[in-house]
Amino acid sequence: MNSVIITIGDELLIGQVINTNQAYIAHKFNEIGIFVKQMSTVGDIEKEILSAFKFGWENFDFVCVTGGLGPTHDDITKKSICKFFNKKLVANKDALINIKSLLSLRNIPLSKLAIEQANIPSDFIPLKNKLGTAQGLFYQTKIKNKFKYFLAMPGVPYEMKTIIEDSFIPTYKSKFNDEVILHKTFKTTGISEANLFEKVGDAKNILKGNPKSTLAYLPSPRGTKLRITIRSKNKNSANHKLKKIEEFIKSKASSFIYTEQNLELEFIIGKILKKKNLTLSIAESCTGGYISNRVTNVAGSSNYFLQSFITYSNESKIKMLGVLKNTLNKFGSVSKQVSEQMAVGALKNSKSNYAISITGIAGPTGGSIEKPIGSAWISIADSNKVISKFYNFGNNRILFKERASQAALDLLRRVLLNLQIF
Amino acid sequence: MNSVIITIGDELLIGQVINTNQAYIAHKFNEIGIFVKQMSTVGDIEKEILSAFKFGWENFDFVCVTGGLGPTHDDITKKSICKFFNKKLVANKDALINIKSLLSLRNIPLSKLAIEQANIPSDFIPLKNKLGTAQGLFYQTKIKNKFKYFLAMPGVPYEMKTIIEDSFIPTYKSKFNDEVILHKTFKTTGISEANLFEKVGDAKNILKGNPKSTLAYLPSPRGTKLRITIRSKNKNSANHKLKKIEEFIKSKASSFIYTEQNLELEFIIGKILKKKNLTLSIAESCTGGYISNRVTNVAGSSNYFLQSFITYSNESKIKMLGVLKNTLNKFGSVSKQVSEQMAVGALKNSKSNYAISITGIAGPTGGSIEKPIGSAWISIADSNKVISKFYNFGNNRILFKERASQAALDLLRRVLLNLQIF
Repeated sequence: MNSVIITIGDELLIGQVINTNQAYIAHKFNEIGIFVKQMSTVGDIEKEILSAFKFGWENFDFVCVTGGLGPTHDDITKKSICKFFNKKLVANKDALINIKSLLSLRNIPLSKLAIEQANIPSDFIPLKNKLGTAQGLFYQTKIKNKFKYFLAMPGVPYEMKTIIEDSFIPTYKSKFNDEVILHKTFKTTGISEANLFEKVGDAKNILKGNPKSTLAYLPSPRGTKLRITIRSKNKNSANHKLKKIEEFIKSKASSFIYTEQNLELEFIIGKILKKKNLTLSIAESCTGGYISNRVTNVAGSSNYFLQSFITYSNESKIKMLGVLKNTLNKFGSVSKQVSEQMAVGALKNSKSNYAISITGIAGPTGGSIEKPIGSAWISIADSNKVISKFYNFGNNRILFKERASQAALDLLRRVLLNLQIF
Repeated sequence: MNSVIITIGDELLIGQVINTNQAYIAHKFNEIGIFVKQMSTVGDIEKEILSAFKFGWENFDFVCVTGGLGPTHDDITKKSICKFFNKKLVANKDALINIKSLLSLRNIPLSKLAIEQANIPSDFIPLKNKLGTAQGLFYQTKIKNKFKYFLAMPGVPYEMKTIIEDSFIPTYKSKFNDEVILHKTFKTTGISEANLFEKVGDAKNILKGNPKSTLAYLPSPRGTKLRITIRSKNKNSANHKLKKIEEFIKSKASSFIYTEQNLELEFIIGKILKKKNLTLSIAESCTGGYISNRVTNVAGSSNYFLQSFITYSNESKIKMLGVLKNTLNKFGSVSKQVSEQMAVGALKNSKSNYAISITGIAGPTGGSIEKPIGSAWISIADSNKVISKFYNFGNNRILFKERASQAALDLLRRVLLNLQIF
């Protein structure tokens, strides 16, 4: 079942609002076997709406529309639907019941505008909207022996969502599903997209014989996601294929994969620390609190995270962490020696089991030929040892922090799990 | 100048990624007189990409494409461009220089894949990408006496943004503008959208007689932006209108406006501290480093920011900040008393001129009837006084940090500028 999502609204075209409806609908449709092949956005102009309807209806089995169903003058989707399908607006009993029950629940009198919301195109089925008066509108017909579907919903995201989740999916979910779709995503870090590609390769080799299944590389400053999509007529065969591909990827890049779920690295670190009953403290210079911020984004992090030392000035490195003035003078604040003293100082002063430290040059000034902007040392200390690594995180201050925080958490992960440090 | 934005990527069609590129580009284009009339999204399939190019090129003056410019097998946009425009991929000297300088800065060896990124369609101009190897690709031609433009960029949002902001707009912004469009944005904080609306009112009253000019309220966790857009054939008249509206808004809401530029509050704080030659330290509990992170997002913050104490545990509040055990026992860690001792402790231990402190309950657990989740005390201390304020930032952990950091920085701003504290 191929589909197109058409979103309607001037606010989208001027960039005032980010279109979150498309991704939400696509994700939900995917789960019930409706595959979105295209998305388009047009303004609140009848001519353009009609031409989008025409293109969608001619080229796809399922046309899904959001926006322009409200009660005000600039909402012209219902009128456009009538024109396109040559239908009349008729008072719909079920729609009126939905609207009346909603308004009485919220103690709002039934206005003329609200009653008009119960007028829907003939032959369309109203889908209940628990959070607003604009009904979802669903239409099905057979053209040349093939079913075609049209679904229109209001553009307000939470109204659209209740129509999808509470009305459309429960009633119609079994209608579209003729194949099994499995998704799996590995989140990797500490390896570039290109190097990961060299290790794992492209979909053609791994997925041979499964032309509809895909392997996608999705890079970001925190690492590259590897997304596997398997499509199959049969659940067992889909599971079998997925398992084979998973095993292949793991055999090539296992230590770079920090999760198979949609979790950030700080949650993985948290799980490990909690399980091993270990505590953490952090000494940050150039990242200015960003690593600590990420660690404390995890609910329950107070179970293992004790405190951080954000030592921007040299004086604070000396006073809070016991870094030696001599070491600062001899090697500079961005050095392996200072980084290690910071980690050891954090460990000692907080009495934690592990400490992360980082010192570097986030830019845009402060670089030199020996230590260019982007340079950073990260150390991990426990009571037995200190491990340190040198990095360059580039010359953009915000990306520097993003990459540095990920590298620091990943170095801790590798130490905690006894993985190789490259 | 009419345009279409075509975004390419399977991750968009399955709903894995929310398409933020469209809104960003539409917004930026708007400012330089390129009006987006349609948006569409297609998958990583050559046939569909080509058909989207065809539709766009036939119907619009400017076609803007993102996605599919990376180095791996699923990136087929460059190939599709060559096919569509009948061009060949040729090694481009400027592109190679861009790529080499980027990689050497980050200490990454020049791989075969990276060199291939310097091959671009003939007659296309590479637009420098400061944050990745995929170049922006710009093409202009004249068809039937009318200029047509084609711009392709990688889909990674921050790479696309640097190409737009640092390469495309500075070079080409004057090309598309046939009327004067002035934008001005006031960033407010510490007042809800509804209350701001009560003070300032809607566009109709302020902008009467200027039907193409608008006033938009754009709420976010950091406050509400007020965006004025003036369109006029004439520069003087546009400036005059803008000035009148600016004065009106300021007369109504001046103290809530922290900037008239596109700057975050931490930059404003930084400017004030630097100008007054003052230093800052921070004691954070519930925000876990997020305030410090924001303060250090400012290049040059080491001039005024000394250090932070991220005291998650009670022990660290006692040890690092000198909070009294008695006070913790009697009033609890989320109390005015503890907040003030934290601020005073930070001031004393860092010898800074000002200190911010915060203690609160970010959730999802830890709330009580007297102190529900979301509760927080924020204090600002200098050598003469401590000012404290109670807040509730709601029960979402990430939004809590966002709102709390903004409130803390705004309280400091009000203290530094001798503004009324509500």
